[in-house]
Amino acid sequence: MQFTAQQIGILLNGIVDGDPDVTVDQLAKIEEATPGSLSFLANKKYEQYLYQTKASIVIVGEDFVPTAPYTSTLIRVKDAYSAFSILLDQYNTLKRDKSGIEEPSFIHPTATLGQNVYVGAFAYIGANAVIGDNSKIYPQVYIGDNVEVGENSTFFPGVKIYYDCKIGNNVIIHSSTVIGSDGFGFAPQADGTYTKVSQIGNVIIEDSVEIGSNTSIDRATMGSTIIRKGVKLDNLIQLAHNVDIGANTVIASQTGVSGSTKIAENCVIGGQVGIVGHITLARGTQIQAKSGISRSIEEEGKKWAGAPATTYNQHMRAQVVLNRLPDLERRIEELELKLRQKNTE
Amino acid sequence: MQFTAQQIGILLNGIVDGDPDVTVDQLAKIEEATPGSLSFLANKKYEQYLYQTKASIVIVGEDFVPTAPYTSTLIRVKDAYSAFSILLDQYNTLKRDKSGIEEPSFIHPTATLGQNVYVGAFAYIGANAVIGDNSKIYPQVYIGDNVEVGENSTFFPGVKIYYDCKIGNNVIIHSSTVIGSDGFGFAPQADGTYTKVSQIGNVIIEDSVEIGSNTSIDRATMGSTIIRKGVKLDNLIQLAHNVDIGANTVIASQTGVSGSTKIAENCVIGGQVGIVGHITLARGTQIQAKSGISRSIEEEGKKWAGAPATTYNQHMRAQVVLNRLPDLERRIEELELKLRQKNTE
Amino acid sequence: MQFTAQQIGILLNGIVDGDPDVTVDQLAKIEEATPGSLSFLANKKYEQYLYQTKASIVIVGEDFVPTAPYTSTLIRVKDAYSAFSILLDQYNTLKRDKSGIEEPSFIHPTATLGQNVYVGAFAYIGANAVIGDNSKIYPQVYIGDNVEVGENSTFFPGVKIYYDCKIGNNVIIHSSTVIGSDGFGFAPQADGTYTKVSQIGNVIIEDSVEIGSNTSIDRATMGSTIIRKGVKLDNLIQLAHNVDIGANTVIASQTGVSGSTKIAENCVIGGQVGIVGHITLARGTQIQAKSGISRSIEEEGKKWAGAPATTYNQHMRAQVVLNRLPDLERRIEELELKLRQKNTE
Repeated sequence: MQFTAQQIGILLNGIVDGDPDVTVDQLAKIEEATPGSLSFLANKKYEQYLYQTKASIVIVGEDFVPTAPYTSTLIRVKDAYSAFSILLDQYNTLKRDKSGIEEPSFIHPTATLGQNVYVGAFAYIGANAVIGDNSKIYPQVYIGDNVEVGENSTFFPGVKIYYDCKIGNNVIIHSSTVIGSDGFGFAPQADGTYTKVSQIGNVIIEDSVEIGSNTSIDRATMGSTIIRKGVKLDNLIQLAHNVDIGANTVIASQTGVSGSTKIAENCVIGGQVGIVGHITLARGTQIQAKSGISRSIEEEGKKWAGAPATTYNQHMRAQVVLNRLPDLERRIEELELKLRQKNTE
Repeated sequence: MQFTAQQIGILLNGIVDGDPDVTVDQLAKIEEATPGSLSFLANKKYEQYLYQTKASIVIVGEDFVPTAPYTSTLIRVKDAYSAFSILLDQYNTLKRDKSGIEEPSFIHPTATLGQNVYVGAFAYIGANAVIGDNSKIYPQVYIGDNVEVGENSTFFPGVKIYYDCKIGNNVIIHSSTVIGSDGFGFAPQADGTYTKVSQIGNVIIEDSVEIGSNTSIDRATMGSTIIRKGVKLDNLIQLAHNVDIGANTVIASQTGVSGSTKIAENCVIGGQVGIVGHITLARGTQIQAKSGISRSIEEEGKKWAGAPATTYNQHMRAQVVLNRLPDLERRIEELELKLRQKNTE
Repeated sequence: MQFTAQQIGILLNGIVDGDPDVTVDQLAKIEEATPGSLSFLANKKYEQYLYQTKASIVIVGEDFVPTAPYTSTLIRVKDAYSAFSILLDQYNTLKRDKSGIEEPSFIHPTATLGQNVYVGAFAYIGANAVIGDNSKIYPQVYIGDNVEVGENSTFFPGVKIYYDCKIGNNVIIHSSTVIGSDGFGFAPQADGTYTKVSQIGNVIIEDSVEIGSNTSIDRATMGSTIIRKGVKLDNLIQLAHNVDIGANTVIASQTGVSGSTKIAENCVIGGQVGIVGHITLARGTQIQAKSGISRSIEEEGKKWAGAPATTYNQHMRAQVVLNRLPDLERRIEELELKLRQKNTE
């Protein structure tokens, strides 16, 4: 789709400064833009790019004063970054504007679909499942029996939701992520074998959660594994049975949380972190990437690092010395030698 | 489904102590139970919950003597925990009671299906594949050509089994797990490029193995990658080509085992562990989460930790000192200073 | 399929030394071979296996002189390993010889398919997608709108490619891998919630790339996440938005690369490595498994290890001392004690 500078100016409530008929069909960073691209300049630091860019249109602040020649049409708005974000979102909405039921799909006769739902080909919606208005079930998604999905949620191709799980409104889940697989529970027997402990709970995902691709969230043994409102999870994350993630907590890729651990609200957890089971992390806890957390953290809003983790500052000081260890050992040897020499003097 | 206390009493061969007509339709922990729930009390430590619980029915030991008022109907049995486990399993069996062939599914004319097999919609069963009696192939599962699956095995939605792999009886594999993808084998060439080494082996999974979701098990270069009887694997695990996992070994989430490594029976391996290729781990080896194992372990039944790993005790002692490193360095400096002062006295 | 020694001799341009009519139907390592197997002997070190093997046919060098009795038919060729590799590749090609369109599949009317393309059942090919000649789209694969796939590429069952991504020629992607899921971009708000940053870029995968199973490669925020020619990626890898992987770089399983990081050509990166965002790694950099890379590496061709990483040699020296830390601390205490005693003498 092509848009003229004039059309975009009207959309953003901005003033067109240049050719109103120039057209664009894509969005790009100002330093990478090609003819036909729309870009933005929000930070003075990048101003020099304006004088080199091939972007056909650049969104700038309303009081921007150029200091060199440029070729783009400018659109002057109150806040260039916000205006560009609006365009990004609208572009994305257009790209993801799917609706209707594609065939073949499998919708159990007892399932209930809201208005304006998208069901892609080869999607499966089980018995008694409920899908709220405007939700998008992409191709090859599996929605098990009795699953409830709220409004305006999106499941990308290949998402698997096991039976009895509950998903809120405005939730986004990316491809190949699995919600509700069995918790890892086995009772050791005298002969060295293990007996499976049935996992009969479910997973509850509250509103406005986003979950990346290839992530696994296990169902609770009994009760629920809970991902609370506004949580953001990256790709390839492991959340074990009965885990509870507090509202607006963010977890980066490849991190694992063991069974029954409860993480409070507004935490920020880096990638490749491991957290043991049956502990609690206080509100606002920050964990550096690759750390290992082996006991509860009770003080709010602190930053931790290392495996096992200590405070971030203590860990950083220790790491600095770590690589001097061979040197420290040599200095101790020298001290011992000197002291022995003194004793024999 | 609803059950009365009387029905459950008969099922568990227990004595109903209270209203035999009260009904339940779910199982719950005693501290979380709502009316309509059945719960259990096996451990004296949790006795106080009985006097607060809203559970309609609580299973207790046959000689349990209450010491305060309570509202639930009791069912007295020999072993409360075992009786409850039986109910958990039966509940699970009911929840997963799938059978028949859903349409559309793809079953190659040369494939052989046993009795009472479930094939979900959009499942694919390739040429010459064999599926044993009572096995469940959920929707969107892929079973490649010549794959053999035993009896009473369950593949949850989206499991992918590449051609020629062999799966035993009573195996459970969770969603999006991949069995038999190519081993990571490439021959470096003089010009910096790599040539693929064809991976023509397979994966053999023996009886009573359970594998979590989003796990990858690569096929052997030649021969077989083998997961032996009773092994339990968690989510997001990587097992490379020609790996051999001994009977009843348990591996937690996000652990990786490199090519041709052989792990003996009854090992317990924590999460996020990395194990290099071409080594062997002795029977009963235990590895702490996040450890890195870079050489063979020959002594049986020992516990290891760290990266590179040492014995668990040695590792723990070193970790304790690690965070005092900056302090140690300062003390060495002081000693050096004092000794220099002594020398100049 | 069965082949005689004579047929294989002709195929490999070799000389049959033994029964030309003996037949084989599989390839095996010489030490594991059963009757009906074809094997090879390229390395003198394994010569003793020739005198024990049950392989029906063994490929050997043209000037090989046996020193004990054996039962196999030999096929003498110029280079035994290369000849066996040719057979491996041909075996693999036969095993993966799929073509035609299986039903039901979903091919959007605006999609374009080249000649001799395989589309498996339940595969989905979106609007305006282009699939080049001889490419194989296995069952349950998802190809989003506007995706371009080159010639002779293979996507195994369950691969998911989001809209607008571009895949080159001779690319292999294994099951459940996700290309083009949203980058992990969220703008923190004053009230502790996060607002999604729309991810409107794509992923470009150049020619001759191979990607393992359950790997996630996120689309760029704007522009492209790029995997360059000849890159080999293992299973369960995380590549974040706007990452750029240089030609012929190899990355092992469970490694994660954060946003906007640029890795140059011919690097070799071990498993479970974590690399922070917005850095660059120089050409030929080697990273040991489990390392953490937190700043740019500018010197080419060096080996790094540890978290945070130092040069491989420095890291190894520090690790050796690490486990002696409790002993070092004790020695410092002794020195302090002795010095105090001296002072009071």
